[in-house]
Amino acid sequence: MPHFQQSVFPSMELSDSPLLLTPGPLTTSAETRAAMNRDWGSRDEAFIALTARIRRRLSLIAGGTPESHPCVPIQGSGTFAVEAMIGSLIPRDGKVLVLENGAYGRRIGEICRILDRPFVMLSGPETKPTDLDAFGDRLAEDPAITDIVLVHCETTTGVLNPLDDVAAMAESAGKRLLIDAMSSFGALPISFRDTRMTALAASSNKCLEGVPGIGFVIGEKDAFARGTDFAASLSLDLCAQLKGFEVNGQWRFTPPTHVIAALDKALDQFDAEGGLEGRGGRYADNCHRLTAGLDRLGLKTVVDPNAQAPIIVTVAAPQSPAYDFGALYDALLGRGYAIYPGKLTEQDSFRIGCIGAIDGPAMDQFLAALEAVMKELGLIR
Amino acid sequence: MPHFQQSVFPSMELSDSPLLLTPGPLTTSAETRAAMNRDWGSRDEAFIALTARIRRRLSLIAGGTPESHPCVPIQGSGTFAVEAMIGSLIPRDGKVLVLENGAYGRRIGEICRILDRPFVMLSGPETKPTDLDAFGDRLAEDPAITDIVLVHCETTTGVLNPLDDVAAMAESAGKRLLIDAMSSFGALPISFRDTRMTALAASSNKCLEGVPGIGFVIGEKDAFARGTDFAASLSLDLCAQLKGFEVNGQWRFTPPTHVIAALDKALDQFDAEGGLEGRGGRYADNCHRLTAGLDRLGLKTVVDPNAQAPIIVTVAAPQSPAYDFGALYDALLGRGYAIYPGKLTEQDSFRIGCIGAIDGPAMDQFLAALEAVMKELGLIR
Repeated sequence: MPHFQQSVFPSMELSDSPLLLTPGPLTTSAETRAAMNRDWGSRDEAFIALTARIRRRLSLIAGGTPESHPCVPIQGSGTFAVEAMIGSLIPRDGKVLVLENGAYGRRIGEICRILDRPFVMLSGPETKPTDLDAFGDRLAEDPAITDIVLVHCETTTGVLNPLDDVAAMAESAGKRLLIDAMSSFGALPISFRDTRMTALAASSNKCLEGVPGIGFVIGEKDAFARGTDFAASLSLDLCAQLKGFEVNGQWRFTPPTHVIAALDKALDQFDAEGGLEGRGGRYADNCHRLTAGLDRLGLKTVVDPNAQAPIIVTVAAPQSPAYDFGALYDALLGRGYAIYPGKLTEQDSFRIGCIGAIDGPAMDQFLAALEAVMKELGLIR
Repeated sequence: MPHFQQSVFPSMELSDSPLLLTPGPLTTSAETRAAMNRDWGSRDEAFIALTARIRRRLSLIAGGTPESHPCVPIQGSGTFAVEAMIGSLIPRDGKVLVLENGAYGRRIGEICRILDRPFVMLSGPETKPTDLDAFGDRLAEDPAITDIVLVHCETTTGVLNPLDDVAAMAESAGKRLLIDAMSSFGALPISFRDTRMTALAASSNKCLEGVPGIGFVIGEKDAFARGTDFAASLSLDLCAQLKGFEVNGQWRFTPPTHVIAALDKALDQFDAEGGLEGRGGRYADNCHRLTAGLDRLGLKTVVDPNAQAPIIVTVAAPQSPAYDFGALYDALLGRGYAIYPGKLTEQDSFRIGCIGAIDGPAMDQFLAALEAVMKELGLIR
């Protein structure tokens, strides 16, 4: 059995899992996992109240209210939520512009293709934020566009895209704007109060530090009311799902009750940490320690610091002939740390996450382990 | 706080949940819930091995092998799995015959309508099994039918439908047969070895006694190979999902890791109990005690004992003017038991489940509580 580092983070306790330095699923706290140690009747009043509480809390975190911007949770992964958002809120005769600079933007294009929504891609380099000039030009050239989809933080690299600028341009052009906020929600500012968006999609197991099993879409009430016959799916129809909650507070189909109980507990910890500011602040500190440590070890990050979200950091593969990702991964896993493979199309890379129930001392311990492993593997002396 | 009964069932330990006498989510064992107390990297070798182990075990429980009848798990509820099965395995120009005698059969019709598959319903009374003569007539009358969908145990009432007869007739007519085995899989005989079926759908949180969060479809290898362009969904495409597992053993999209770890642990207990025979035997004993006890209390069940699956029992609402389902439900919940509302369209009823981590003594304790509550409420003297 490998030896696992103990963090000083108060809610991180004994678990035989490695520390997950990945974009998710993440390391969760012991309290969050403990919330899964009871069963719930999914149609019982207590569970109905739990669902209502989570939906309300998520609307508020998004800068909305349950009335103005209802939260519609959906069973499955984040991709299920993104597909449900596109299928439920974009009319079948709409035309979608996907702002793409990575794998998750390309996945949105794939969803539009499969759901038979007319769409065009505006693609840019994976290591750079969305090009606003090119976006403005495309808007001017193609008045048929009805809906814009943007990935807020592109997990492919960790690039943060210019949400507010895109939203302002979309608003002045009179277009709907849908956001894939999977990696950013709960840690980076994204608010219906400050930014005009039609809807955003996120999930239980990213910056909210719940366990995986549900995604959710939060959006303008009117958008859900309009889409009652858009979806070509029973399970992934957010408008019907919302109607179900409105009728009797129940999920239409069996919800992952334990996952939902864990999310409620995770939201308690989110509040206790100071909400978005506290959570985002801890991740920023993690990211700062990480990038400074990588720099000390001679490892190069691929995203400009100005465009780097404190979510996940992409590291260029060392040029050394001694480098092998599998060997690095296994050696770190043996010390209790799981890093993540790269997803860049043009360059060999790997990724290290800053999110989850991980604090600064844990990040420092990881960096010490990384240094030791790099010495063992002959990557540094 | 209500006082909750303690069961003598060895794996049922302290939890502040009521005993769930419902069709699911169910009462799970303490061991199963404890398996959720660690985090997994979803792309890590250990989790890849866990996924492979579960897929293999489920194929074997279905009387297949991973090679002949691969298991394709899918995030979400059982309905997600049924929708994915219909969307992925039935050609867009197929014609579906849905054998319907309850809400879950009607839901399959609704899925066919939404997924734009031509379909016809053969509907029968909710309290009776599928009428085989009517089925034979329909097959003879409508040669355009390509696919038949049957609900094995219709949870609306607990009626067991005649799977083997339907399968034999479908086979001799040269039709594909898809089974919604949600409520039966793991407890009632259903095997690719004995019965010619194209595929079946079930979920983690019914008779396998896992927690809710994934469904799965097990089917003939060829059926998945044929359907590569049938699905109009990215998330619910079982053929792409299977290809993903074949390529690198990974889920295409973030899986509910904790739910999957719980299912693996639940399958250990399934094996330890003697597999389908042991599990089905315990449920049959639960059901026998339950129906005998209901009879002693003067409560009438609505399904003929010959057609009653030992899964869930539908009870006719007492004729007494003192009867009110909400009052009965609340009084039982106060004693630690959650029963389930009825779903019959033609008759007021309620339901009591026989499944989950519940044994005979627990069922006897429930019956004692039911008797006490019925006295309190003036339903019996």
